Amino acid sequence: MTARRTPPRKPRKKGARSKAGAGKKAPQRSARRSAGAAPPQSQAHKPAGRRPARKTRAAARPSRAARRVFFFGDGRADGRAEMRETLGGKGANLAEMTRLGVPVPPGFTISSEVCAEFAAAGEIPDAVKRAALLALARVERSMGRRFGDAANPLLVSVRSGARVSMPGMMDTVLNLGLNRETARGLAARAGARFAYDSYRRFVQMFGDVVLGIPHDRFESRLEELKDARRTEHDTDLSAADWQALLLEYEEIVQERTGRPFPQDPHEQLWGAIAAVFRSWGNERARRYRQIHAIPGVWGTAVNVQAMVFGNMGDDCATGVAFTRDPSSGDKRFYGEYMVNAQGEDVVAGIRTPLPVNRASRSESSGDLPTLEERMPRAYRELVRIYKRLEKHYRDMQDMEFTIERGKLWVLQTRNGKRTANAAVKIAVDMAKEGLIDRGEAVARVDAESLDQLLHPTLDPAAVRDVVAKGLPASPGAAVGRIVLSADDAEAQSRAGEKVILVRVETSPEDIHGMDAAEGILTARGGMTSHAAVVARGMGKCCVAGCGALRVDYAAGEMRVGPRVFRAGDFITLDGSSGEVMAGEVPMVLPELGSAFGELMRWADRIRRVGVRTNADSPADAKLAREFGAEGIGLCRTEHMFFEPGQILAVREMILAPDAESRERALAKLLPVQQRDFEGIFAAMAGLPVTIRLLDPPMHEFLPHADEDIRAVAAALGAATATLRAKVDELREFNPMLGHRGCRLGLSFPEIYAMQVRAIAQAACAVEMRGVKVQPEIMLPLVSHVGELERLRALVEGELSAVLAAHPGVRVRPSIGAMIEVPRAALTADQLALHADFFSFGTNDLTQTGYALSRDDAGKFLPDYIEGGILHDDPFVSVDEEGIGRLMRIGVEGGRRTRPELKVGVCGEHGGDPKSIRFCAELGFDYVSCSPYRVPVARLAAAQAALSLGNPRRRA
Amino acid sequence: MTARRTPPRKPRKKGARSKAGAGKKAPQRSARRSAGAAPPQSQAHKPAGRRPARKTRAAARPSRAARRVFFFGDGRADGRAEMRETLGGKGANLAEMTRLGVPVPPGFTISSEVCAEFAAAGEIPDAVKRAALLALARVERSMGRRFGDAANPLLVSVRSGARVSMPGMMDTVLNLGLNRETARGLAARAGARFAYDSYRRFVQMFGDVVLGIPHDRFESRLEELKDARRTEHDTDLSAADWQALLLEYEEIVQERTGRPFPQDPHEQLWGAIAAVFRSWGNERARRYRQIHAIPGVWGTAVNVQAMVFGNMGDDCATGVAFTRDPSSGDKRFYGEYMVNAQGEDVVAGIRTPLPVNRASRSESSGDLPTLEERMPRAYRELVRIYKRLEKHYRDMQDMEFTIERGKLWVLQTRNGKRTANAAVKIAVDMAKEGLIDRGEAVARVDAESLDQLLHPTLDPAAVRDVVAKGLPASPGAAVGRIVLSADDAEAQSRAGEKVILVRVETSPEDIHGMDAAEGILTARGGMTSHAAVVARGMGKCCVAGCGALRVDYAAGEMRVGPRVFRAGDFITLDGSSGEVMAGEVPMVLPELGSAFGELMRWADRIRRVGVRTNADSPADAKLAREFGAEGIGLCRTEHMFFEPGQILAVREMILAPDAESRERALAKLLPVQQRDFEGIFAAMAGLPVTIRLLDPPMHEFLPHADEDIRAVAAALGAATATLRAKVDELREFNPMLGHRGCRLGLSFPEIYAMQVRAIAQAACAVEMRGVKVQPEIMLPLVSHVGELERLRALVEGELSAVLAAHPGVRVRPSIGAMIEVPRAALTADQLALHADFFSFGTNDLTQTGYALSRDDAGKFLPDYIEGGILHDDPFVSVDEEGIGRLMRIGVEGGRRTRPELKVGVCGEHGGDPKSIRFCAELGFDYVSCSPYRVPVARLAAAQAALSLGNPRRRA
Repeated sequence: MTARRTPPRKPRKKGARSKAGAGKKAPQRSARRSAGAAPPQSQAHKPAGRRPARKTRAAARPSRAARRVFFFGDGRADGRAEMRETLGGKGANLAEMTRLGVPVPPGFTISSEVCAEFAAAGEIPDAVKRAALLALARVERSMGRRFGDAANPLLVSVRSGARVSMPGMMDTVLNLGLNRETARGLAARAGARFAYDSYRRFVQMFGDVVLGIPHDRFESRLEELKDARRTEHDTDLSAADWQALLLEYEEIVQERTGRPFPQDPHEQLWGAIAAVFRSWGNERARRYRQIHAIPGVWGTAVNVQAMVFGNMGDDCATGVAFTRDPSSGDKRFYGEYMVNAQGEDVVAGIRTPLPVNRASRSESSGDLPTLEERMPRAYRELVRIYKRLEKHYRDMQDMEFTIERGKLWVLQTRNGKRTANAAVKIAVDMAKEGLIDRGEAVARVDAESLDQLLHPTLDPAAVRDVVAKGLPASPGAAVGRIVLSADDAEAQSRAGEKVILVRVETSPEDIHGMDAAEGILTARGGMTSHAAVVARGMGKCCVAGCGALRVDYAAGEMRVGPRVFRAGDFITLDGSSGEVMAGEVPMVLPELGSAFGELMRWADRIRRVGVRTNADSPADAKLAREFGAEGIGLCRTEHMFFEPGQILAVREMILAPDAESRERALAKLLPVQQRDFEGIFAAMAGLPVTIRLLDPPMHEFLPHADEDIRAVAAALGAATATLRAKVDELREFNPMLGHRGCRLGLSFPEIYAMQVRAIAQAACAVEMRGVKVQPEIMLPLVSHVGELERLRALVEGELSAVLAAHPGVRVRPSIGAMIEVPRAALTADQLALHADFFSFGTNDLTQTGYALSRDDAGKFLPDYIEGGILHDDPFVSVDEEGIGRLMRIGVEGGRRTRPELKVGVCGEHGGDPKSIRFCAELGFDYVSCSPYRVPVARLAAAQAALSLGNPRRRA
Repeated sequence: MTARRTPPRKPRKKGARSKAGAGKKAPQRSARRSAGAAPPQSQAHKPAGRRPARKTRAAARPSRAARRVFFFGDGRADGRAEMRETLGGKGANLAEMTRLGVPVPPGFTISSEVCAEFAAAGEIPDAVKRAALLALARVERSMGRRFGDAANPLLVSVRSGARVSMPGMMDTVLNLGLNRETARGLAARAGARFAYDSYRRFVQMFGDVVLGIPHDRFESRLEELKDARRTEHDTDLSAADWQALLLEYEEIVQERTGRPFPQDPHEQLWGAIAAVFRSWGNERARRYRQIHAIPGVWGTAVNVQAMVFGNMGDDCATGVAFTRDPSSGDKRFYGEYMVNAQGEDVVAGIRTPLPVNRASRSESSGDLPTLEERMPRAYRELVRIYKRLEKHYRDMQDMEFTIERGKLWVLQTRNGKRTANAAVKIAVDMAKEGLIDRGEAVARVDAESLDQLLHPTLDPAAVRDVVAKGLPASPGAAVGRIVLSADDAEAQSRAGEKVILVRVETSPEDIHGMDAAEGILTARGGMTSHAAVVARGMGKCCVAGCGALRVDYAAGEMRVGPRVFRAGDFITLDGSSGEVMAGEVPMVLPELGSAFGELMRWADRIRRVGVRTNADSPADAKLAREFGAEGIGLCRTEHMFFEPGQILAVREMILAPDAESRERALAKLLPVQQRDFEGIFAAMAGLPVTIRLLDPPMHEFLPHADEDIRAVAAALGAATATLRAKVDELREFNPMLGHRGCRLGLSFPEIYAMQVRAIAQAACAVEMRGVKVQPEIMLPLVSHVGELERLRALVEGELSAVLAAHPGVRVRPSIGAMIEVPRAALTADQLALHADFFSFGTNDLTQTGYALSRDDAGKFLPDYIEGGILHDDPFVSVDEEGIGRLMRIGVEGGRRTRPELKVGVCGEHGGDPKSIRFCAELGFDYVSCSPYRVPVARLAAAQAALSLGNPRRRA
């Protein structure tokens, strides 16, 4: 029996990405499940075998035009790989494999056109039946068995196969051709237990799929039988047990349908084919098509194929093999097999599979016999075939095979899933081997999957005790002991403990604790909350807004429903999924091979879109540069303000009663900002650095809790009441739409003036050390040209003053606008007259353009995506038809009045491959993303150039 | 002396509208200041007089092509009204009046082209000087005086006059031609005091404007002189005083310029002309041109005109007259004059002016002698002239005149300012008299000004003790005693007191107090705060977000800076300006004459855009219908939820742990909503009613203060902790972008289902009473077509269920989307496939599209408008280039996929004339506004049709 099931592939969901993906794990069973990298295309084949019986009967072949039944087997096939429309994906690939000389069990495909005919007529056309019988006769000849023959019966599978894969959506019937008589014949040849087990499986499946009898009707009888035998395993049941069960099954059929179970194999065949055609129209399949925009008129083909069995005795086996190591990507044939077993046994994991060869041996399978040793002939043929298949498909293959009494059959080959690591290695190796060109190598690696190579991740094989889920606020994973205050975090971290800082929400007072912690977990706050923003800036794992969490500082514990975790208990965070887990989940650390560097170099030669990084510190800048960043696209100056040494001066500045005292406070900040900028300029020597002037509303810098207000007031020497009044005064109903961005710069020109002075002085200082500096000064939240005009004048004035004082220095900072308000995009033609560059802040543009607060959307956005109202989370991939249209209007408008306008994106979309492709299509000059996403962006940009047909250079 | 100054007209500001505008006030001096209605065009003239001396000298006239100096006087003029480009507005009008035979003092205009020649050459071209001297000779002949003649000197004024009026921006010199010698001559003819006063004024003005000597140099000497004479009035100074002062003035000139004051009148003349040309380029004029987009190349013309004097004795007078009553609009000649006075005296208000005729007499001027009685000949001529002028200009004229020794001179005529009331009456009367057609009558009345006819307003003449300013949250005015709680408001109101409810902010618990109060004042909250929204719904005056206010409930007082107001003290609110005043400011009540109804009927025949109202109650609906509303464009269902009887059930619904208990709570609300809808449908019989399903976020319905939470929990029988937790859970960072609108309908379909059932059942019930109902169900905050698709299905399902149960009823509700999110406008083509209508919520569209929270913008938006970054408040008039572009995209997109799509606007812009014009241009079907704005909208819509050249019918 060879019914290894293709696990249904779920509709791709962004949020669910990269759960798996082992870095260096020894390949074993879990490698199949851990493959995070979706191959560019997945082809599903069911192979056929035995050297062809060469005599063909021309008369049996209908004319090409009218052909609706396509035979494959014995090295010949009526179909080809290109005929997916007619044969469906599976049928086309079975034909292709057969043509390649791979031993695929013979069979035939009824074309998808018949699906519509069947739906219209309600029955299978006679001409199709006739052609099917002719093809069936060829299968019989090929297998040397006859359909319905009592002594040596041919059994077949009947499966659907649409133009595109719709895994698990339609029906399948296996072991068709069995009845009381043929079962007896099979028993004589292959043993009674096997034969009656097969027959009862067939009755159950046929009963469910064709006759419409709910399968639990059958299963409950099986359970009763196992209870009676006091066992939990089918394997403990005897042939007699199966025979007894069959009687009960036949009774169920009689009772439900008023007729005995059909004993005529042909009646079985037509019934199964009809059922598969019908299943094209079932509710599940319809819905799937709706979601994936698959036209209903396409229909499904039906594949009827000879069954082969790996569980007929010790000269039988079944297995799975990869043409290269799916975990490391190393070029070595790798696989597992089981003697006297069927595919399901491998999946079920009851028995331990054996290594096919020495190379496939792991620590745990050290001395077990290999297929190479036990069945050398079959192994040699498998080797011959894998080489042919990989060469033909020009990609690493994942093959399923069965050995029936020493004879090898290949049931399926498809592009194998692999870890990100392996994907890179295989693509680069294949390009070097000349199997593919470099462009294809670049195109093949899922850019998104690189993320797992760059952050430490949780061992995908490990058990996760997920206790709650929050927002995936900052990627990566972290394990540590719970601490409930920043001070504790710092103290315990100094003492060598790894800690996770758990807070209701964080504030600037917590920075030192966040810095000390491995990861941050908050009960409140969204993707742009203090915790999330600061954690991303630190490149630190963070799960925010975990609503189920109750943090009780007084009790020193956190609760999730009935579960209580005390300070000191271990928890684990997955910042990429938002999961919070109890205990310590093992981690996997990234390691970048030389193939990675090579692939990146090829990508760089191809792409047109530049890749910059969002970085606020010299350390981030350095890291990003190592990852290949070509500049800084977003340097947020406010993060500097949050630093412990500066926050007091910032608060003094906010509390200043007039411009003069504000300037005094700002004078304290200037040298610190300047020093930070010097560090960043030096780190990015020669590359452009876009600095965004102060953006967040003032209240973000002030304390909010009563005790904090008191403490800060004391530190500032201000009255508590004054501070509290200021905090109240600055509170806003909708901070996202409030007094922030360049509006602050207009209300308090002294602040921007100080920042520009710091930038200019830093630039001059670094240039005087002989390092080239390219500052780009960016004004945030511009919504009206009037704002830009005035602020540009202010910035230019400050720049001139500083530059005039440094006559030898040749820095020429450019001045641009952040486009993050719909109105800015809509009036881009006006703005461009006063902007040297635009940088799209697609995060805020999405929030405003969609009226969707990222911090609040948690209440309904997941339901929207789950419920199919939205297909993608617009904060992950740019919403092309809505927000994207604004971007298009913005770019086109801007370049209309200033054709040389430099345009980039600095929202988090800058690291999302789909969004990068969109930006490339719009003609953006660069994208900017977090340091860890830089390689993802480089690869995605190259792939965009390839798919848009405008690579800079064919690699 | 005739120097009545045209008060500088400020750049039009929306926020500053309709401060004045007396309704029924007896016309008196203040009528000039109280005119709120800006006439369609304002023409400034300086008239000329005395029957022409007929002999012309052909030789003196240069060829037409080369003419740069244009004479006017004696009934003849080289220029005409149409020659504004060449002569400037003033010059053209002086020429026009002269041609009409009006006695205008003669003079000549130097064309604006010379301005550029002067700027290029730095001097007046000789040819121009020659032509000016020839024209001056004609003036001399006309006046019978000679320029520089010691015995009978001609004095002239030199003034600027650009193509469009730039009031107060450029320079003027009066009394030019005086020197020691001519002053002596003048003294002989008109008295020494008059002559030397005139001369010293001239020296001061010439010194300032031409010689560049700061005028305070002269004024300080005058002050010293008055101190020495122990007087504050110029009138107490004698001729000798003036002569003494002149010596000092001449010294100042000598000292500052190194030369004596120029005694040669021609040198004076060329100097003054040059100075006026130069003043075109001064900083003030430049900035004014920048703001008003006036090209610098236009230049200014210069007008040189003979001076006439109303203060040479008792046979002299000066005055102002209107061709109709500027306060009531009644057709009667109305004016004031002063004997032996100059224009400045009228303005200064030191002496009381006299009525020109019996009709102009007021209570206070009952027995005073009229001009008609005192100078019957001049009065008769004035009557003859006013009739001619009104007929010629086809509008009510505001004339300035001077009588010099019995001889009448008209100095200026222009379209007179008038109250809104008068504007309506005059327009309608003139159309009936055949002076203008009905379209012009409709076009002439400032739509905005109607607002003051419809709300009670403060007496514009009253003194205002403004203590603070908040947001003008709901128009109208209110006077009452301060109360600090809703219960007090209710109790005192029952006791017959008029009260103003003053709160930090209001919540649903305060509704009964708001209802009882005359007006509402809050310290916090913006234009969409609870107080503002509810007050507007009630048509009640409200000033919100008055940040300077400190409300101390415990002390029972409110403070503004040092001023303390106790509960029970009187205050006055102006809901249109946001002003809070101490004490009781007198009010003026509206009264609509028959002319108003007539004008509205004419407007209705012309306009294409429908006018609906925003109304949430049968009372509002009825009121709006009386004001001419053609349907309801926005019926907010949540206001019903706030009603005392319902809020508890609403809270129960919000706290419901599951859909089932939510349905139970909703079942309580259904009959109440149904009853409300029945009332509204009945009130709007036959007209469409657009009902918006629940929109605001849930937390708006919950209490927030601790004590309120406790009270509500008790009333609901829920645990306080549960309620508090729910309040916390529902709190949002950016409610504007949060879980509201149709997002609620998707999260809690039971709510929308209940509302739709209530609508359908109400419609059926009312139809069964024989009243036609046209419900339109509107889904708020749609941002994605998926939302609309699903909710439309839900709404249709509920409708079908109810309608199926009422087989005899023929209601066919339509279903539409509110377009208030940028993304909705951007994807309108998709939305229109599932929407029968669009209603643009331009308020929220502005907030999201501009990233501008109306509640928070108070911190910077006023500065933006003040500072000229924005010219208009985008919440008052649609921002055409930004948000308007989204509207255009939305309408065009929607009609592309559904050409018959009905499109309206239901934001507050629906009542703003400028926005209505824009909507008409975009092809909107209707606008919807608050009941009191309906007449404004009807008139504005008609004016839009006229200005767009597509009136429905020429009235």
